[in-house]
Amino acid sequence: MINNGISIENAAQMLLDADNILILCHKNPDGDTLGSAAALMYALKAKGKVCAVACHDIIPAKYDFLGIEVYENQFVPEFVVAVDVADQKLLGDSMAAYSADVDLCIDHHPSNTGYAKYVCCDGKLPAAAQLMYSVVVAMGAEIDVNIANSLYTGLMTDTGCFKFSSTTAETHIVGAELLKCGAQHNFISERFFMSRSKKTIELEKYALNTMEYFFDDRCALIVLTKDILDKVQAQPSDIDGISAIPRSIEGVDVGITIRQINDSTFKISVRTTERANASEIAQGLGGGGHTRAAGCEVICSLEGAKNAILREVETALCR
Amino acid sequence: MINNGISIENAAQMLLDADNILILCHKNPDGDTLGSAAALMYALKAKGKVCAVACHDIIPAKYDFLGIEVYENQFVPEFVVAVDVADQKLLGDSMAAYSADVDLCIDHHPSNTGYAKYVCCDGKLPAAAQLMYSVVVAMGAEIDVNIANSLYTGLMTDTGCFKFSSTTAETHIVGAELLKCGAQHNFISERFFMSRSKKTIELEKYALNTMEYFFDDRCALIVLTKDILDKVQAQPSDIDGISAIPRSIEGVDVGITIRQINDSTFKISVRTTERANASEIAQGLGGGGHTRAAGCEVICSLEGAKNAILREVETALCR
Repeated sequence: MINNGISIENAAQMLLDADNILILCHKNPDGDTLGSAAALMYALKAKGKVCAVACHDIIPAKYDFLGIEVYENQFVPEFVVAVDVADQKLLGDSMAAYSADVDLCIDHHPSNTGYAKYVCCDGKLPAAAQLMYSVVVAMGAEIDVNIANSLYTGLMTDTGCFKFSSTTAETHIVGAELLKCGAQHNFISERFFMSRSKKTIELEKYALNTMEYFFDDRCALIVLTKDILDKVQAQPSDIDGISAIPRSIEGVDVGITIRQINDSTFKISVRTTERANASEIAQGLGGGGHTRAAGCEVICSLEGAKNAILREVETALCR
Repeated sequence: MINNGISIENAAQMLLDADNILILCHKNPDGDTLGSAAALMYALKAKGKVCAVACHDIIPAKYDFLGIEVYENQFVPEFVVAVDVADQKLLGDSMAAYSADVDLCIDHHPSNTGYAKYVCCDGKLPAAAQLMYSVVVAMGAEIDVNIANSLYTGLMTDTGCFKFSSTTAETHIVGAELLKCGAQHNFISERFFMSRSKKTIELEKYALNTMEYFFDDRCALIVLTKDILDKVQAQPSDIDGISAIPRSIEGVDVGITIRQINDSTFKISVRTTERANASEIAQGLGGGGHTRAAGCEVICSLEGAKNAILREVETALCR
């Protein structure tokens, strides 16, 4: 295990030496940042520490079961730890007071900018929760059912239920340990993978009904106009899964989802198989990301946005 | 671990003592029966045995990568082993010659009828592949990449990617071992969980467009008419995922999928949350199954089928 900055043991000791600890999540929080933060919160409390969790956004209701204690000035922070936050910008504007003063960052993004005083990061892990498991163990905290549920939530959501390529034998071993410690995996998978909001269903219906195919069906494209998003009153969490749909169709190598932000601004999500490079496609329009999932934002008409991204897709498919 | 009939060690020894072994899968074969059969085939071949796999149905193309050697009278079977087959009826008509003469059954269904001479069954396991892992280890066969891929396919498909309630710590530990032995999990999850056929997409679109809600939206119902199934030229594997859709909607406790077989025959699939009993609902119309997933077949008109099942659902929701 490679740690940029400090080792797991040093990170654990640093936490044990601190008190009045503020735990920061990234904005638009997901299961990994919240699950890892919750686990750390429970471990610190078990060690007699005062601590709480802060996030730029309101924590979505589906994470209520984690029982996260939100920071509301209960104490004056003496130690700030960011969890699953690759870049201080991702803390969000309302966390600006802390972003230059993060003492420790526990993360799994290879792109971590090293903004914190100390960084404990393993870019090969599929989830921050897998690293947090090791930190909590190194702190000598017992993995109780709360910690087990929190970490299992992070592990499941960031690996797409142990599906993504970054999953390793070690991920399953941590999963096994968490189940032994009482993680209610059925409750968690039901919540995150086996149920969809009515709004998501409405958007899926719209997406399937309006999907277009290009380049011998190797590219599928969905447009989510502001009209439909407003009509459905979709929240970001309702839209999350939609951009995976076009790429999930057999034979499709590039899936494009164009989401209208306002009259002339469009966010474009690019997902690819190993036969095309999503990052290169998005870079063509000034965006970026990973090899299989990337994005960009364009300011033009809808037709302009479609034509522009399709030109990039065509180039990528001809490579 | 409870084994009705014989232990894992005895089953392994029985296989090592045999030769010219015919491995039987259940009809409408899935990833667990085929993955478990393929793993056993590779283990037996490694032990110098002559063996092959037989199935009532043609093995769907998406399982080609398993490299299953199909039985075509290459040898006269001296030993017949059924894998993941709870009842001899599930072998299918074309296997009638063997169904009364199965020497050994390796299975994980609590409902196993005990039709084989010897049964090695653990009804608490989420997949036959988890039991087959232990059998192969007990046979002293090395878990090579073929066996690892075969068993991981069974494990993933029968647990819905480690999501279903039957998943345990031991399931993850076997998953970890298979990854250490070279299972290409990314290839397998991409194949079974991250891509859908165009026919499936067409059926999903139809399902979402025609879904009806009942009983304060606690029940969602889909009808797949023979017309739409013929129009899409849907194979059973294209339909598989559709019956999970109605129950997957937030707030829905009973998901019903009615599939038309002919003018007056309808197969009804019932899926429930923990707030309703699928088996009881299906039993009301002469069917049966598990607590969360059950089914029945009715002979009447489409309206009759809908009304009949909705009456059962209403009763169940009032309990």
